[in-house]
Amino acid sequence: MAQKPSIPKGTRDFSPSEVAKRNYIFSTIRSQFETYGFQPIETPSFENSETLMGKYGDEGDRLIFKILNSGDYLKKVDEAAYQTKDSTKLAVDISEKALRYDLTVPFARYVVQHQNEIEFPFKRYQMQPVWRADRPQKGRFREFYQCDADVVGSDSLWQEVEFVQLYDAVFTALSLEGVTIKINNRKILSGIAEVIGASDKLIDFTVALDKLDKIGEEKVKEEMIGKGISHEGIEKLQPLFSLSGDFGAQISQLQDILSTSEEGKKGIEELQFIEKAIAELGLKTAQLQLDVTLARGLNYYTGAIFEVVAPKGVQMGSIGGGGRYDDLTGIFGLKNMSGVGISFGLDRIYLVLEELGLFPETVTKTLDVLFINFGTDEALYAMKAIKALREQGIHSELYPDTAKMGKQMKHADKRGLPYVVLVGEKEMEQQTFTLKHMKSGEQVSLTLTELIAKFK
Amino acid sequence: MAQKPSIPKGTRDFSPSEVAKRNYIFSTIRSQFETYGFQPIETPSFENSETLMGKYGDEGDRLIFKILNSGDYLKKVDEAAYQTKDSTKLAVDISEKALRYDLTVPFARYVVQHQNEIEFPFKRYQMQPVWRADRPQKGRFREFYQCDADVVGSDSLWQEVEFVQLYDAVFTALSLEGVTIKINNRKILSGIAEVIGASDKLIDFTVALDKLDKIGEEKVKEEMIGKGISHEGIEKLQPLFSLSGDFGAQISQLQDILSTSEEGKKGIEELQFIEKAIAELGLKTAQLQLDVTLARGLNYYTGAIFEVVAPKGVQMGSIGGGGRYDDLTGIFGLKNMSGVGISFGLDRIYLVLEELGLFPETVTKTLDVLFINFGTDEALYAMKAIKALREQGIHSELYPDTAKMGKQMKHADKRGLPYVVLVGEKEMEQQTFTLKHMKSGEQVSLTLTELIAKFK
Repeated sequence: MAQKPSIPKGTRDFSPSEVAKRNYIFSTIRSQFETYGFQPIETPSFENSETLMGKYGDEGDRLIFKILNSGDYLKKVDEAAYQTKDSTKLAVDISEKALRYDLTVPFARYVVQHQNEIEFPFKRYQMQPVWRADRPQKGRFREFYQCDADVVGSDSLWQEVEFVQLYDAVFTALSLEGVTIKINNRKILSGIAEVIGASDKLIDFTVALDKLDKIGEEKVKEEMIGKGISHEGIEKLQPLFSLSGDFGAQISQLQDILSTSEEGKKGIEELQFIEKAIAELGLKTAQLQLDVTLARGLNYYTGAIFEVVAPKGVQMGSIGGGGRYDDLTGIFGLKNMSGVGISFGLDRIYLVLEELGLFPETVTKTLDVLFINFGTDEALYAMKAIKALREQGIHSELYPDTAKMGKQMKHADKRGLPYVVLVGEKEMEQQTFTLKHMKSGEQVSLTLTELIAKFK
Repeated sequence: MAQKPSIPKGTRDFSPSEVAKRNYIFSTIRSQFETYGFQPIETPSFENSETLMGKYGDEGDRLIFKILNSGDYLKKVDEAAYQTKDSTKLAVDISEKALRYDLTVPFARYVVQHQNEIEFPFKRYQMQPVWRADRPQKGRFREFYQCDADVVGSDSLWQEVEFVQLYDAVFTALSLEGVTIKINNRKILSGIAEVIGASDKLIDFTVALDKLDKIGEEKVKEEMIGKGISHEGIEKLQPLFSLSGDFGAQISQLQDILSTSEEGKKGIEELQFIEKAIAELGLKTAQLQLDVTLARGLNYYTGAIFEVVAPKGVQMGSIGGGGRYDDLTGIFGLKNMSGVGISFGLDRIYLVLEELGLFPETVTKTLDVLFINFGTDEALYAMKAIKALREQGIHSELYPDTAKMGKQMKHADKRGLPYVVLVGEKEMEQQTFTLKHMKSGEQVSLTLTELIAKFK
């Protein structure tokens, strides 16, 4: 029976050139991670359900892919849940495992489980796929890679400094110049909420503030009032909407606003440390920018908050983000383990590099040269040369069949190959190879040594 | 609430050194695949269930991990199946997706789905995890990687020749010298079955023959008799149990046995072509060996069958295998697409390299040098040097906290780092760095240029 084959919505096949481009991004990131002293770990694609459930909120729980138990999975189910067809309750009985939803929770689990083997502070990176049962849409997939680097086991702000440098190093290595690394600090957001008398409404307040870019000052204020923040409080916010000048100037305006908040002042201190160090060390192509509206899943972060946006002119939103979370491993019973980390958005970085034409041409190069097949003897003669070429790392192959010359040339053309080698009786007699340039049609006769030299 | 964290049985966490070693194997294989002209593709971790179900036999169907539908998955279930608690039937309604079981079926699906974009013959490789709900045991996991290279769209035997070379190239590059590449041909097995009058018992016959190594000649014969193969037939098999000499000598004994079978003679011809080409081209460190008992999931293969075993003295069984299958894509409606491919067994190769001490030392190297942290000013001075080192690709970092010297040295020691750099007031004044060798304790004073030169 013939089936019309397809793949599940929200998933993707990757063609050779797409894999090559993705691997170029992965290997560029990996190389910088390792230069900065981060070490790779990998965790299983599925975890025990209880490791993941309840860690991402109710919405997260719904978006976690659950794996059906093997064998007769209905044997031991909760009868009440079964009779009432309670999908949520029944899922607990018939599914013990779930696909990884992000890399942070599995990392926290890993740290706790292997705490006796790990030497802290532990700098780890991880590049693996994650799965979410989100509604698929442009740029949002049900399977996608995350590339995370985190340090666990130290409070030092040098790590925040290092992550700013790391973003700069990776994007510079990818030739993606001019990205903006936005930075904020949870303590500043808490401080502001405190100053305007809305400490109990911190989440509502930051969610509204986070929208400043998109909906503008007036709407943000309306939303805050709607959430019960006082007019008087919003009055005090006014300077926030018109912060101006460079990093230092903005900081000094913030100092005025936050002069009565200990936590706010602590946040300013932290930002200043990072800013000063970066000013001393310099960045290659990125710029660091203070953005007090930046919140990103706030209930996570306790200190620095990062977000990277593509260079001006590219409509892409965030291509990376991260921050400090003081109690990474508490959910698994290990207290006082501060973590700080950043993530790279592979799919968006891919789209940006594609849009700006920044993938090097060599990335998608497949074969250096194809040998045309004129018959068994010629093929054997060719295979001896191919063997020598391959030993030198030259990507080469024989067209496998003795097809018509035209068909073989067309194959070379369709694959975009730069050269073919022709071998007939004359070449075998003279121990030579005719190298033909596909575009110009130009042919030269070469010895094996010359042929190797040509491609080395 | 503190949970005691663990991972599902049959899955694994990989530590930094394990990831590094695995990546060394992957990248060695990838490099050879690409030199041989193979191109990478990737397919989604889960496929539509109907793509996978029924492709691996009943046992396979049971071992496929199924993903529970999202949302209220009980809304539209077959009432009869639900009332009778028929797990198998209900699974069809509550699970539309399943985790990849191997890379071959997804590849066949990919070829059919993208046939208009693919230029044939298509040489693809794929290195991705697969999942099987097998009972976990030593060396058998529920999540493991497969590394496959296949060619689809050509019958040429040059591909079989190339795969023998490729195995040789990969294992040589891994310094795993002396592997044996066993080869057989389905047509020879069919021919023998024909000659002994057991064509209708081909599977039983080959399953029994496949056990010769393990259970010996007498037991194999008993099993065949048990399966209804005649004494007379088994008599004719006798020469098979005592095949001797080199490849050529064995072939000529096979020719005697198979003189009356057209299919058998075709199989011999194919083997001879491959053997002759390999003899002409030479292998670096592997040896090619005829093994007429080799069957490997026979219902798959239609021509050549390959299996690679580790060098003598290593108890590991097969570390790779593959073969030709004439109708790869027929299950998805695309006829006449011959495929041939091989696979590398990552986990077993890992164990063999570990046992023989063949991982290069550099593979697990993490950091070149750690800078000890004596305070904010010293740290900034160090970070400037670290920045310069990293720009030269030298893996370096600052200990993030101003901890006691002893603690920092212990950290360097536990991580197995070769060097630390000490920076105090004197060094800052003189613009130097004190490099300390961890093992010998020896210290030298270097300028930044000298420090870079030391590690370049």
